[in-house]
Amino acid sequence: MSTESESADWWATGIVRMAPGELDLRGIPVQELIGSVGFVAMIWLMVLGELPGARQAALLEAALVASVDHGPQAPSIAIARMTATCGVGLNNAMASGVNALGDAHGGAGQQCVAALTEIIDATDAGEDLDAAVAQVVERHRYFPGFGHRFHPVDPRRDPLLTLVDQAVADGVVDGRYLRAARAVEAFLNEGRGKPVPMNIDGATAVIYAELGFAPELARGLFVLSRSVGILAHAWEETTQGKRNKGPIPRSILPTYRPAGPPPRN
Amino acid sequence: MSTESESADWWATGIVRMAPGELDLRGIPVQELIGSVGFVAMIWLMVLGELPGARQAALLEAALVASVDHGPQAPSIAIARMTATCGVGLNNAMASGVNALGDAHGGAGQQCVAALTEIIDATDAGEDLDAAVAQVVERHRYFPGFGHRFHPVDPRRDPLLTLVDQAVADGVVDGRYLRAARAVEAFLNEGRGKPVPMNIDGATAVIYAELGFAPELARGLFVLSRSVGILAHAWEETTQGKRNKGPIPRSILPTYRPAGPPPRN
Amino acid sequence: MSTESESADWWATGIVRMAPGELDLRGIPVQELIGSVGFVAMIWLMVLGELPGARQAALLEAALVASVDHGPQAPSIAIARMTATCGVGLNNAMASGVNALGDAHGGAGQQCVAALTEIIDATDAGEDLDAAVAQVVERHRYFPGFGHRFHPVDPRRDPLLTLVDQAVADGVVDGRYLRAARAVEAFLNEGRGKPVPMNIDGATAVIYAELGFAPELARGLFVLSRSVGILAHAWEETTQGKRNKGPIPRSILPTYRPAGPPPRN
Amino acid sequence: MSTESESADWWATGIVRMAPGELDLRGIPVQELIGSVGFVAMIWLMVLGELPGARQAALLEAALVASVDHGPQAPSIAIARMTATCGVGLNNAMASGVNALGDAHGGAGQQCVAALTEIIDATDAGEDLDAAVAQVVERHRYFPGFGHRFHPVDPRRDPLLTLVDQAVADGVVDGRYLRAARAVEAFLNEGRGKPVPMNIDGATAVIYAELGFAPELARGLFVLSRSVGILAHAWEETTQGKRNKGPIPRSILPTYRPAGPPPRN
Repeated sequence: MSTESESADWWATGIVRMAPGELDLRGIPVQELIGSVGFVAMIWLMVLGELPGARQAALLEAALVASVDHGPQAPSIAIARMTATCGVGLNNAMASGVNALGDAHGGAGQQCVAALTEIIDATDAGEDLDAAVAQVVERHRYFPGFGHRFHPVDPRRDPLLTLVDQAVADGVVDGRYLRAARAVEAFLNEGRGKPVPMNIDGATAVIYAELGFAPELARGLFVLSRSVGILAHAWEETTQGKRNKGPIPRSILPTYRPAGPPPRN
Repeated sequence: MSTESESADWWATGIVRMAPGELDLRGIPVQELIGSVGFVAMIWLMVLGELPGARQAALLEAALVASVDHGPQAPSIAIARMTATCGVGLNNAMASGVNALGDAHGGAGQQCVAALTEIIDATDAGEDLDAAVAQVVERHRYFPGFGHRFHPVDPRRDPLLTLVDQAVADGVVDGRYLRAARAVEAFLNEGRGKPVPMNIDGATAVIYAELGFAPELARGLFVLSRSVGILAHAWEETTQGKRNKGPIPRSILPTYRPAGPPPRN
Repeated sequence: MSTESESADWWATGIVRMAPGELDLRGIPVQELIGSVGFVAMIWLMVLGELPGARQAALLEAALVASVDHGPQAPSIAIARMTATCGVGLNNAMASGVNALGDAHGGAGQQCVAALTEIIDATDAGEDLDAAVAQVVERHRYFPGFGHRFHPVDPRRDPLLTLVDQAVADGVVDGRYLRAARAVEAFLNEGRGKPVPMNIDGATAVIYAELGFAPELARGLFVLSRSVGILAHAWEETTQGKRNKGPIPRSILPTYRPAGPPPRN
Repeated sequence: MSTESESADWWATGIVRMAPGELDLRGIPVQELIGSVGFVAMIWLMVLGELPGARQAALLEAALVASVDHGPQAPSIAIARMTATCGVGLNNAMASGVNALGDAHGGAGQQCVAALTEIIDATDAGEDLDAAVAQVVERHRYFPGFGHRFHPVDPRRDPLLTLVDQAVADGVVDGRYLRAARAVEAFLNEGRGKPVPMNIDGATAVIYAELGFAPELARGLFVLSRSVGILAHAWEETTQGKRNKGPIPRSILPTYRPAGPPPRN
């Protein structure tokens, strides 16, 4: 192998083919995509390597629409707004917002797809659904994608689940993840005064999983969706003209609370 | 003003209104948006504060589709792929890709909208279009959004401009930015052997500007679009299983070229 | 040129030479540096390509010590703390803090070095110092590195300037930037009730410039210094155990203040 | 509790106390630190809450010096260099480099401290050292901090371990982590032709652990150290003047290798 092909192969990809004047994405010339294929279908094509059916794309679209924003109390949004006041480009502000979508902020969907997959694998191996649910729930202190500290019922839950129900009824998806998620919900609520309903992360996880996305991609798709809110907030902050915005008004000084040296190894 | 309202007001926003069980985005309850409004219309709503017409959304959609990817030679894509091999979440890999979309990588669209706006402002002030073009082009060493070091003609140019032509013909947009951009192209090509045609950044800048987005938002929208390619590549790299991937194969050591001390102040 | 050397040359560097079992930094085997050279001298070596004198290193050290932290009201610190609660590595939290050190947060030192350099260039070209100061101050709405919205006098100013005075007296640095900065201070304060004294960014800019660092490196060195505070805060936040921390307590909802659509192009 | 103190308490910290004209870091007025305390001692003070002894600081200093750089094949360095060509500030380029120091790039030190701590905990509980080593090594496919794909023996290993030996001999540190690490090395090499010696991550992990830093801080301290190399490389790249630098020379196109759709869920 020549070294040229070594360096070329180091960056081998099945996503893009380029030549002067030519650009194929997943095997399709870009000029055939522009104006013909929607943005959501394009996301699907790029990530999964093939074009979706219209009903599949519609389900993905609903999930992407539902997650765009949950206000400045979300660290990702506050961070993007603060960064936007620090004299950097909008892309840098957006990057820092996205960077905060870690396991404890943007990871619940990924964790929920993974946990639901464990349940389905167990039932595929012959386990009873309720038993599988009990076992998998047992392993989690908080089952990802259920419960919300602000919303008693997340207003995004029912519209999304209604769309999944329709898609199952019409044979667009097979409904295994939906059934598993509903069984988890029933299990969590059994004998409780205060229910722990599926939240936005759970409902979108069901959609992503039903559509065939791997757990990690539940996070990736959430990033695409939340980037919209991050952009909107970073831009709103920019137009308000603050510079170097801290987390609380300047008149309030953080409490000084010396706590002794932090724990040592 | 009480201090509660001070802290609450420090984070005032017109984008989101929340109450337990309620979430309005730009004044519309989220449950009315899910399943009814497309993802591109949602982007528009969040950023500009109102819903677009169908033809406006279609034009924005074409621009978003066109810019998703240009392969691993783009720093943003290579960076996302490399970061994805370093043991962080997909969101972190995407963040570092987006962070590279600065003035010299993701900024041409923003600069092009700004430059075309200067031309239009000059003609609004009574200047002749050709004279305005000549003056504004003069001020730039490279006019942003024109010419490409790889593509003699960018394959994304004509499909996009065709859509803008149709939109102008149908009164969806008024065509001022398109006319200014075509005048720039004609001016740049006058008497040249090798043409300097509008590229993807120029064509999408025309669309964003015709649709009423501020220059900075041309960068913001490009970030949303390119994030799709960034996700696809970060995920492809993840599935290939390399760890700690450097820029060139491990068998090739960077050249050592001592250059004397770097320039001092 | 073979292609291998093309890829090797693409990454040519004068900073590092490597071979199996060997690692030279700026021409010095790493084993000769470890235990012999201090961390501040190492920073100098890596950035400027040669080892500093002891007095030069001491001056740089004082500047690095002085800038480590200014509390959680600084966006960089608040962002790092919030990100640390989102389920990512400490490095990701630190990255987002550093990412906020843009023109309006970490850029004053860089801008101050550049502005002082303009003054010195003018005097080198024969201009009188006071006239050069007046001209350069005129060009800035706020002269970078002077005035502070919190401290009437920045407590870090005098200890730093005292060290520079000693260094000038001992011939360690020549004092041109110090004289220019003091002339700026005098000019700004002339006839004012409320003085606009040099702040931490101004005092460290004087040090960096006297030591021969280019303006951009004033920002780079500040990043190294502030990264210490960013780490300390990210870690303190981690040990406090909050998850997904927003900018204000959860009991306070951001004010909803619809403002009509944002400005259109 | 008033709401003002709620917002103030939300950002409570033991690191900084501020008042107009006053800034204490870990209880010490900043003006007493500037010029008196070294940068490495300052790092220690900020992170651990107290000043180190001179010998402790010297050991930390050696570790920080040793890790500053390992050339552009390291993703963090390549990423910082590429980002620096994209039209963003040096801080943004540094942020993206730091962001790549994840579990598989900057995490070995953290993992090594954690694994050595497991060994020590087992011996504290009465286990024999060799047995404890065997058990803990068993649990890792690759024991973090040992072996190197490029260096047969890492040139930074011996100088660092010599310093730890001296510190143990002089009672500066007690040597438990050093003994555990040497026992791991002996265990890994037993009966092997090709040894798997402790590498830079292992040697610095021993130092950080001996000095009392928690595992996560091994990563944090590595970030501070590697940030120096990241800055030096980002700046060198900036002075070389490339714009929008990709990972391989422009003449080499990434191989197109369609692989069928990526794996589905």
